[in-house]
Amino acid sequence: MPEKGHYPIAVDGLQYSNFFRTRLFDAVTYDPNRQLFEQWRAGRLAGVHVSVALWEDARTSLDSIGRWQRAFRDHGDILVQARCAADIRAAGRDDRTAVLLGFQNTSPFEDDLALVEVFHTLGIRCAQLTYNIQNFVGASCYDPTDTGLTRFGRFVVAEMNRVGMLIDLSHVGDRTSLDAIGASQRPCAITHANPRFFFEHARNKSDEVLKALAGAGGVLGLATYPSLTGGRHISLADWSAMVARTVDLIGIGHVAVGTDTALNWTLEDAFAMNMARWSREPQYGAHTANEPGWTALPDWYRSPADFGNLAAGLQTFGFSPEEVAAVTGGNWLRLYDECLGGAVSSSHSLEAASR
Amino acid sequence: MPEKGHYPIAVDGLQYSNFFRTRLFDAVTYDPNRQLFEQWRAGRLAGVHVSVALWEDARTSLDSIGRWQRAFRDHGDILVQARCAADIRAAGRDDRTAVLLGFQNTSPFEDDLALVEVFHTLGIRCAQLTYNIQNFVGASCYDPTDTGLTRFGRFVVAEMNRVGMLIDLSHVGDRTSLDAIGASQRPCAITHANPRFFFEHARNKSDEVLKALAGAGGVLGLATYPSLTGGRHISLADWSAMVARTVDLIGIGHVAVGTDTALNWTLEDAFAMNMARWSREPQYGAHTANEPGWTALPDWYRSPADFGNLAAGLQTFGFSPEEVAAVTGGNWLRLYDECLGGAVSSSHSLEAASR
Repeated sequence: MPEKGHYPIAVDGLQYSNFFRTRLFDAVTYDPNRQLFEQWRAGRLAGVHVSVALWEDARTSLDSIGRWQRAFRDHGDILVQARCAADIRAAGRDDRTAVLLGFQNTSPFEDDLALVEVFHTLGIRCAQLTYNIQNFVGASCYDPTDTGLTRFGRFVVAEMNRVGMLIDLSHVGDRTSLDAIGASQRPCAITHANPRFFFEHARNKSDEVLKALAGAGGVLGLATYPSLTGGRHISLADWSAMVARTVDLIGIGHVAVGTDTALNWTLEDAFAMNMARWSREPQYGAHTANEPGWTALPDWYRSPADFGNLAAGLQTFGFSPEEVAAVTGGNWLRLYDECLGGAVSSSHSLEAASR
Repeated sequence: MPEKGHYPIAVDGLQYSNFFRTRLFDAVTYDPNRQLFEQWRAGRLAGVHVSVALWEDARTSLDSIGRWQRAFRDHGDILVQARCAADIRAAGRDDRTAVLLGFQNTSPFEDDLALVEVFHTLGIRCAQLTYNIQNFVGASCYDPTDTGLTRFGRFVVAEMNRVGMLIDLSHVGDRTSLDAIGASQRPCAITHANPRFFFEHARNKSDEVLKALAGAGGVLGLATYPSLTGGRHISLADWSAMVARTVDLIGIGHVAVGTDTALNWTLEDAFAMNMARWSREPQYGAHTANEPGWTALPDWYRSPADFGNLAAGLQTFGFSPEEVAAVTGGNWLRLYDECLGGAVSSSHSLEAASR
């Protein structure tokens, strides 16, 4: 095991663990798993983007947000809600972790443009345009045909631009992603995916998408999740080499970490996540029929407590301290500064979307 | 018609007009009735408390809130959202009207305590414990038996205290009201009702309830609505005499105005408001079988543009300028300062509710 790396402010671009010991769509359970929050502190994470919806509609998402509001109170000694990058910087100084709430789907907006601002007011600061299947907004990376950002999708992108909500393209299809990057007046994110040049997988990203993302100022969060790296046998040096090649492709200012940590879910939860209500046939998401459930994590990243190992691996690989700081947190903070702040003029962006 | 009265900051404690040309429970229509907003400016109202739910559940209330968020943007030259008393004072200086959003029911909270904070985060600053029938929280003024604040009601009161949401008892039954006043650690409001000594009506309030309200620091908003005064033939002098008698009973610091203005609804809307989904038999609310719909307004208060007439009437009746200022706005601001500010300690108030 390498020495823990050093970083001024560490931010993980996406985690989806079972923080409240719930089952998916469970409206009632509130049983915060403080051990998971303490892992953030052990990893000295100043910021974590967590997903509070995968398939949920508006009403169900209120349950998830309510749980987090309660947890921020009950675990306020180590947690605080992040509504902007400054909250994460402050948490870094206070030895707390600032939690940025996001959706891995636009399903909570239903077909209702007004809900973008409603959920922004509730603190939602990021939404992935699709989860694992075509929705009102666009196509997912698993859809055989991707006809791009829908008409409603263009309105959603403009409205997210206006209110200051980050557009996440991680599970989104290539054409929809390229359309969204073109339509968005602010940079976009891919919070948790890897390049296809490293591991060929529908959930990973083509050079074309990565270059378009970075060309518009966006940031890619590279995942440690084994389904996206090719397996738990990948070494930290292999992972660091992937970071280096990605930096060579799109630049040091556009590469960050989004581990896609998903701890403490059951096999049944994995099926619920992948099938939701829209399928009666098995769906495996990033997994496979042979290995349908949760894959074992690599020994250099078993939980967020090991976040320092990623910084150490990058240092060992030859990244400078400034480069390590950018990849392990600084680039997310820059993007959050650009995307979560004051609104783009309403009429401007909505008119642009109508054209 | 008297001269318009003078007041430094005028606040109407409740209005329920059809601001968006919707039908009740309509999820789609957004057609702001700017004429109604301009009436607020004509009446020099710095603050108005408007109801965004009567029977709505959580999801439907998001539609209503979304409409107002959009209207605050589209009519920002004359409107601004009020989240605290300071917003109303600022609006008074800017010649705008600050709109305080509230619920006339706890139905948007469903059976879910977490939704109190969720809706507070969305800007809801007042909730009436019941509308016109028993709910999870307590009994309405029309229920033949009122067994008081329920166990859930005690938790809701404590949670509203904690987050800073005003407790409104206008349509609430006597015993439930007395229980709530006793349980609440902050003063309560009756935003729109009159004393029964002036007009005997289930919606109006007994001396006992009014004294308990004021004894705990609360405020009563006296209504101009004819169903609550006895009819449109009541003169402004009669109405001012009611104010004076109420001040004699509970003190000048506890009497304000809540007109219950409800303009531009249809007769069908009135039935929908009163029957909602819980009755197949006619329900008349504050109206009667003989006059089931909207009663004509008195010529001294035809719309909020005439709010100045109320101040003038009070001056003519003999109230001092300071007293007029208290009744026409100052008392609401004092109550909002006490009830909408920083949270009461969570554990303290929830423990108190469990006892």
